[in-house]
Amino acid sequence: MDDPKQYVVKPYLVTRRLQPENQETPIQFIENDIIHNSLFYRRNHFSYPKLTYSNYFLPINGLVTTPLLLSMQNILQLPSKTLEVVLECSGNKRSLFEPKVFGEQWEKGAISQGVWKGVPLVTLLEFSGIMEGAKEVVVEGYDVGIRTDLDKSFSYTRSLPLEKALHPDTIIAYKFNNQPLSFKHGFPFRLIVPQWYGMASVKWIKQISVIGSHFTGPFQDTDYMYYPNQNNDNDAHPVSTMNVNTTIQKPLDMARLNSGKHVIKGIAWTGKGYIKKVEISTDNGSTWSNAKVREPISGYKWACWSYEWSAAEKGIYTIKSKATDSYGQTQPIKPYWNRKGYGYNAIDQIKVKIE
Amino acid sequence: MDDPKQYVVKPYLVTRRLQPENQETPIQFIENDIIHNSLFYRRNHFSYPKLTYSNYFLPINGLVTTPLLLSMQNILQLPSKTLEVVLECSGNKRSLFEPKVFGEQWEKGAISQGVWKGVPLVTLLEFSGIMEGAKEVVVEGYDVGIRTDLDKSFSYTRSLPLEKALHPDTIIAYKFNNQPLSFKHGFPFRLIVPQWYGMASVKWIKQISVIGSHFTGPFQDTDYMYYPNQNNDNDAHPVSTMNVNTTIQKPLDMARLNSGKHVIKGIAWTGKGYIKKVEISTDNGSTWSNAKVREPISGYKWACWSYEWSAAEKGIYTIKSKATDSYGQTQPIKPYWNRKGYGYNAIDQIKVKIE
Repeated sequence: MDDPKQYVVKPYLVTRRLQPENQETPIQFIENDIIHNSLFYRRNHFSYPKLTYSNYFLPINGLVTTPLLLSMQNILQLPSKTLEVVLECSGNKRSLFEPKVFGEQWEKGAISQGVWKGVPLVTLLEFSGIMEGAKEVVVEGYDVGIRTDLDKSFSYTRSLPLEKALHPDTIIAYKFNNQPLSFKHGFPFRLIVPQWYGMASVKWIKQISVIGSHFTGPFQDTDYMYYPNQNNDNDAHPVSTMNVNTTIQKPLDMARLNSGKHVIKGIAWTGKGYIKKVEISTDNGSTWSNAKVREPISGYKWACWSYEWSAAEKGIYTIKSKATDSYGQTQPIKPYWNRKGYGYNAIDQIKVKIE
Repeated sequence: MDDPKQYVVKPYLVTRRLQPENQETPIQFIENDIIHNSLFYRRNHFSYPKLTYSNYFLPINGLVTTPLLLSMQNILQLPSKTLEVVLECSGNKRSLFEPKVFGEQWEKGAISQGVWKGVPLVTLLEFSGIMEGAKEVVVEGYDVGIRTDLDKSFSYTRSLPLEKALHPDTIIAYKFNNQPLSFKHGFPFRLIVPQWYGMASVKWIKQISVIGSHFTGPFQDTDYMYYPNQNNDNDAHPVSTMNVNTTIQKPLDMARLNSGKHVIKGIAWTGKGYIKKVEISTDNGSTWSNAKVREPISGYKWACWSYEWSAAEKGIYTIKSKATDSYGQTQPIKPYWNRKGYGYNAIDQIKVKIE
């Protein structure tokens, strides 16, 4: 009974659904920059695929000059790239929309980051060659199942416009945090699309096809579309790049604190560009001060920020955080409401009571 | 990579705080009647005590005719009792109060149950004898720390009125689910007080004292008191017996479902008495039907209930559950608001969308 393990206190994934497995990162309790694989959020559309790896081959076909069938060994031998990338589910913070949106009630933890190692997709496409007229690259996953809304079986398949597919940082990843990619996160190969919401980063890659038209599939044109209206599909447009955003990690929402100094800390991230500043308000948005932003302003990681707050007087405080990125994009006061609840990025806020 | 473990999908504790450790049971995802030790909610007031067990002795003192110093062996050799008991933190569902209450934002999972084995407290007190004038039995835990509101160190200590202390089902537990009580849940000995909220079930018992007056300590007379007013302590009264209550486990709140048959299921429990009926409304409380209540109506367990719902028409539905116990107590529409947020037991509700 004097086992030191008995004293270990740690956070866990927060379950949103078990079939398929959807669990979020306990983001408020994350101390490190890099999320351990066991706490990386899990977002699945179907139950896990049953894969046999002994005869795994990756076909690259469609509008290519030389169709390829690559073995795992073939891919692992190609020149690789290592990138720190944040992945955020486009449904992150869905539970905060008003009016409420049905579906997975993600709080603030459908976001994680880590170090991905893999082969640029463009390297593979240079081997296969791309024919004239190519428009999109379709990536199919091994995960498959019935969509009850369409009463038909589909695999999880998404396309990228040629420009994004050929970007040298769009990679076919096989390592995460210097370990082989885990099964639940897409072993043997997962697409990693920096700057885009996580739905683009297809797991368990089964096939890559170059096509000459716009790909239409339920995960491309039905889901992962912004529908700004409750009762019709007018002005629908696709979800792609992440919005500029912040999450306050500490203090905890609704915490009771003593008067005195407190560190307010959190993370900030954006799709295109980098985080230029993070502002904090401790008076419900009346006045704002700059937080200290710790991370180098490059790459695809989130920035960690902190702010020293002297809470002298007792009372209830509303604390807000707001990031601005290098393209001048900033967080709105009200989120962009849409029927499926994607891309929430309103100014973050918590309340605390100083006692 | 063909390890079957990789496919295992399971829920975890939901972290509310790490220092001290406060984590709730993922109650919506619990399939069994008995909660596995790893998913039993954890509620601590201080960091874990550092105990050395080699010289553990339990003193029983105060207004007793023969003060005792019992070894672990002494206690384990006494006649034992095995009881299935639900423990609910009095702060369970605190996050649902309106106006909001500061402090740990427990959702619906600060509740668990299992099989406790131990020695009735009355057995020990029969050995020690109780002197005339005895009023309460004070149980002190090894957990200790500074209370910042009082700027002083306290151990976690609670008292029971003599009548409850002498009840034959108030036990000093040392086994849970047929395993030795785990360290985090109070090894070597934890008081289990059936019918009362969990704050009474003191962990890591250090000392038991019989006293002739009302015990006053911050965990007796400051915390775990109902304060019905925001700005004064008028009408304060202690938290003790659990209120009659229900929690809907399925469907999940804000779920999107197909039209057709759905099983609505959940749990119901009460302090005094047993669950007599559980009613379900699928039309926001306009009409109610009886759920099937599965458990035998005795003992200290929660009752599992289910209700078959035919959801023919598309739309948004508010589903409610309401229990009534054998004393005729039922759940209120509005909870009894109190400043520290204890004893929430309003009619439970979720929303779903039939598509």
